[in-house]
Amino acid sequence: MSSQFISIENLKFLLHKVHKIDDLFQYPYFSEYNNEAIDMVVDSALDFSNKELFPYLVEMDQQGVSFKDGKVSVHPQVYKVLNKLGEAGFLNASLSFEEGGIQLPYMAHYAASLVYTAANNGGIGYTGLTAGAAHLITSFGNEELKKTYAEKMYQGIWQGTMAMTEPEAGSSLSDITTKAIPTETSGYKISGQKIFISGGDYDDAENIVHLTLARVEGAPRGTKGISLFVVPKLRVEEDGSLKNNDVTTAGIFHKLGQHGYVTTHLMMGENNECIGYLVGEENMGLKYMFQMMNAARIEVGLTGVSIASAAYYASLQYAQERRQGRHPSSKDSASEPVKIIEHADVRRMFFMQKSIVEGCASLVIECAKYLDLSKASSGEEKENSLLLLELLTPIVKAYPTEMGIQSVSNGLQCLGGYGYCQDFPLEQLYRDIRITTLYEGTTGIQSLDLLGRKMTMHDGKAAKLLIKEIFAVIEEASGLDELLKYADLLKSYLDEYQKVMGKLMSLARQGKPEEFLADANLFMELTGNLVIGWQWLKQVIIAMEELKKDKNAVFYSSKIETLRYYFIYELPKCKGLMDILVNDEGVTLTKEEEHLI
Amino acid sequence: MSSQFISIENLKFLLHKVHKIDDLFQYPYFSEYNNEAIDMVVDSALDFSNKELFPYLVEMDQQGVSFKDGKVSVHPQVYKVLNKLGEAGFLNASLSFEEGGIQLPYMAHYAASLVYTAANNGGIGYTGLTAGAAHLITSFGNEELKKTYAEKMYQGIWQGTMAMTEPEAGSSLSDITTKAIPTETSGYKISGQKIFISGGDYDDAENIVHLTLARVEGAPRGTKGISLFVVPKLRVEEDGSLKNNDVTTAGIFHKLGQHGYVTTHLMMGENNECIGYLVGEENMGLKYMFQMMNAARIEVGLTGVSIASAAYYASLQYAQERRQGRHPSSKDSASEPVKIIEHADVRRMFFMQKSIVEGCASLVIECAKYLDLSKASSGEEKENSLLLLELLTPIVKAYPTEMGIQSVSNGLQCLGGYGYCQDFPLEQLYRDIRITTLYEGTTGIQSLDLLGRKMTMHDGKAAKLLIKEIFAVIEEASGLDELLKYADLLKSYLDEYQKVMGKLMSLARQGKPEEFLADANLFMELTGNLVIGWQWLKQVIIAMEELKKDKNAVFYSSKIETLRYYFIYELPKCKGLMDILVNDEGVTLTKEEEHLI
Repeated sequence: MSSQFISIENLKFLLHKVHKIDDLFQYPYFSEYNNEAIDMVVDSALDFSNKELFPYLVEMDQQGVSFKDGKVSVHPQVYKVLNKLGEAGFLNASLSFEEGGIQLPYMAHYAASLVYTAANNGGIGYTGLTAGAAHLITSFGNEELKKTYAEKMYQGIWQGTMAMTEPEAGSSLSDITTKAIPTETSGYKISGQKIFISGGDYDDAENIVHLTLARVEGAPRGTKGISLFVVPKLRVEEDGSLKNNDVTTAGIFHKLGQHGYVTTHLMMGENNECIGYLVGEENMGLKYMFQMMNAARIEVGLTGVSIASAAYYASLQYAQERRQGRHPSSKDSASEPVKIIEHADVRRMFFMQKSIVEGCASLVIECAKYLDLSKASSGEEKENSLLLLELLTPIVKAYPTEMGIQSVSNGLQCLGGYGYCQDFPLEQLYRDIRITTLYEGTTGIQSLDLLGRKMTMHDGKAAKLLIKEIFAVIEEASGLDELLKYADLLKSYLDEYQKVMGKLMSLARQGKPEEFLADANLFMELTGNLVIGWQWLKQVIIAMEELKKDKNAVFYSSKIETLRYYFIYELPKCKGLMDILVNDEGVTLTKEEEHLI
Repeated sequence: MSSQFISIENLKFLLHKVHKIDDLFQYPYFSEYNNEAIDMVVDSALDFSNKELFPYLVEMDQQGVSFKDGKVSVHPQVYKVLNKLGEAGFLNASLSFEEGGIQLPYMAHYAASLVYTAANNGGIGYTGLTAGAAHLITSFGNEELKKTYAEKMYQGIWQGTMAMTEPEAGSSLSDITTKAIPTETSGYKISGQKIFISGGDYDDAENIVHLTLARVEGAPRGTKGISLFVVPKLRVEEDGSLKNNDVTTAGIFHKLGQHGYVTTHLMMGENNECIGYLVGEENMGLKYMFQMMNAARIEVGLTGVSIASAAYYASLQYAQERRQGRHPSSKDSASEPVKIIEHADVRRMFFMQKSIVEGCASLVIECAKYLDLSKASSGEEKENSLLLLELLTPIVKAYPTEMGIQSVSNGLQCLGGYGYCQDFPLEQLYRDIRITTLYEGTTGIQSLDLLGRKMTMHDGKAAKLLIKEIFAVIEEASGLDELLKYADLLKSYLDEYQKVMGKLMSLARQGKPEEFLADANLFMELTGNLVIGWQWLKQVIIAMEELKKDKNAVFYSSKIETLRYYFIYELPKCKGLMDILVNDEGVTLTKEEEHLI
């Protein structure tokens, strides 16, 4: 098994050179940081991953999780990782000093998360969820909730979850039916079922705290009547004792992948003794939850990149060792077979993997920078950063996961029959990554968000900002002889893209939402493709500078080759996509359902 | 769980209307058949599948196979299916009367196989392998081998396998090292290891007969020194008794999918007591094996179509029942949620599935017809049928499997989180189908075969014949007002395609095999896309005729809608592919291996 799952050199290149994390240090909010401190975060993430995560990747999958006599068991390493990262202060590192954090830039936080997740995507899931759930309490909960629940979660002692989905409300949260009835104390009686709750129960954890969406009796219909509650498995009584809170696990889901990451079906209030504590105000739950969901969406995209990274290195090692076949020009069967990495078609599959892994990792760090700037900066810069972050969030969720699946599939394919076998981790990674286009809103949902909401918000301001950013990079690249050709190529696609946008926006203005949104999914693929093209151009401008200094030539020339791959092999897909997007036959609009038989 | 896995109505439409199986009945070879007899074959395949295969699909996966104390156990239904289909005469039905068969057209044989395989792809694998292995003996073996081994295999009493792959010889068969040393009797002493041997051992089977590639001592290097042997697990002694033949199972492979279909690692001759019986002449083994491999390649393509078909119907049933969300034009949360099949993006994913399943099924039947004609006809017709079959074989192997994977993935996606869970068969089918781009030569190997061998053979005659066939359908479609637009579209792509071909062929003529073949994989995708476009046009010409007779309007109008989907959403991918194929930067050619780090 490969011992590498991610390139730290690449992460540092992205952080320092491409996305210039030191821009952040000029702001008072991040003034305590410097490049060395950031590197330490990344290096220690690798060290931790090598010791505590990667060695358990396969074991956690094979051992799986169990549910017996109402009790859920997971691999013991799960709780150890949560504890250790809690102890190390990783879960609340990005919070402000006032909130108890150390104001760690998200750029560093996500870089570290890429490392952890590439090492063991299921194993780190519990920690990410706990941090996200605790952040919700910190942001919107009262002091008591923070002190009673969030603290233990940040310490990695209590597990946190997000409990949204119900049997009849998955993609459509407006149809949530879990009930909350006010009581005479500060609590509400909660009753309902929640399904697909990751990390929802396991016996190692001292407690599990579910950030739960429910509807207060008499609340308005739809999304405007949803409230957010802290619903612990064990509630903290006034005397500090823990009392069973009538949250039980009805069962666990048996899944394609992420076998070490438990997914539960929870029953709340079957005995009418489940108490939930309101977070913030009534009926504001979905708005609050979106804070966590937006972060979770970036993190799911990050998971896609990370799993693809692990698959890339696992397959690369195989291809650099395995000998099979000969070049078309040398059919001499007496000659030694070549390493399979030398076959053009195998190289194509590796360049595809590398272009997706490193292109999408770059986008993750880009998003993290906008997130950091939206906190640290002010005025127009703050506003623009937030707009760009909002626009890029569905993209960084959907594109790296959809392409990540293909990327891992290419990795598996490179191993031939061995790729299909458990002797190598590819088949596991292929199973694991498949969830990422479903978690936290399917690609279809992300695409509706992108086209229907983000592209149009503030009169299209975010979209204009993004296009401006991309054109700025194109212009810079145009000044470099070796990149002019590629800059022109991206520019011509972007010009066409704007025409496609114009056509779609006119449908929106004409009050034709069905036609406008029918191919949102393809619009996502198109936009994602261009956005990753932008990230590659951005990386290679820097790589060419560095190459002049003749430092680590192979690393930088590899970047240039991968850009060439991406621009020649991936960008042309935009042509077909734009063709479809301007077609107005409306093939997929509901006409007669019977057409599908 | 859905109770449907394939459309019999569609198969009959393809057999009778689109591909006109009754053309065959005019030839003496098939003169005993008529439409009713063909329908009986298909109907009884469905009946058998409903009883003996489909009910065990999930069970075989969950129960898996086991290897303990040197013994392999599989689900008991495996041997029952082999027995019953052997008894029913299915395994040798397509052989000539002289060979003991009933001269069943392959069109009917493959239609039945589509049914069986859609019902339970792993479960039927054992039977297909046995038939293929026995055919090899029938075609090239002596009377004794036929009588001693093939007969029992056709009866479904003994299991057959193809034993080619070795630890150091997978895609590259020229590097096979298993040894065969002549003895004083008719047998050869065999010694070597074979891996990835499907159906290679299980205790229910009375015997297992391995059609094995090995190298006779002193044979020429490479593919010219490979011979084919019958290597039974138990050899038949002169007195008819069975004797252990020193073939042992060293282990089984644990795989991503097809958990009920055992894959073994075999040791032959560890105690120097393994006897193999030469099939045909020495050093002709690879040529013989290609008969089986060509059939197996069509059957793997067929497996891709079949699994995608099962996934299509399983997901369709879900989407027609599950309600979630509302149309973009109706956000009223008090309204009842719509069935998810009504969402444009979900419809797109279903049209994609249907277009692949039914388009590729049509190609399978088309290939079967060329196979039948290559046997029954004579002169130029025979020659052309054979050329077209040879050309289409790598395409029908590669395209339906690559697109089948995406098709099943779309089916899984339509179920949201449930698609990832074992509650529905999608996750299993997603695992099962992933092997199909690896079995019997990866997509890379098929693509080299298509571009490097089949497109150029006989001075490109096969390619010219195919293009002529496609143009004939285009011309016919051009005569129909409703289809003119689509006929023109396919024509314009085909014109461009010929230019791309011209460019590639000139590389071949210039003696640049590396450049010529570098993007063979994309050439395959391009060709497959156009070929399926051809199949859709062919189907819809007939559908429009039938629609005028107003017979089963929904079935035929659904065909037309699906053609529209395919031409608007799938064909435009050709644009990007052709862009790449004419690019001459040579990004993937081996320059410096270090560019991939």
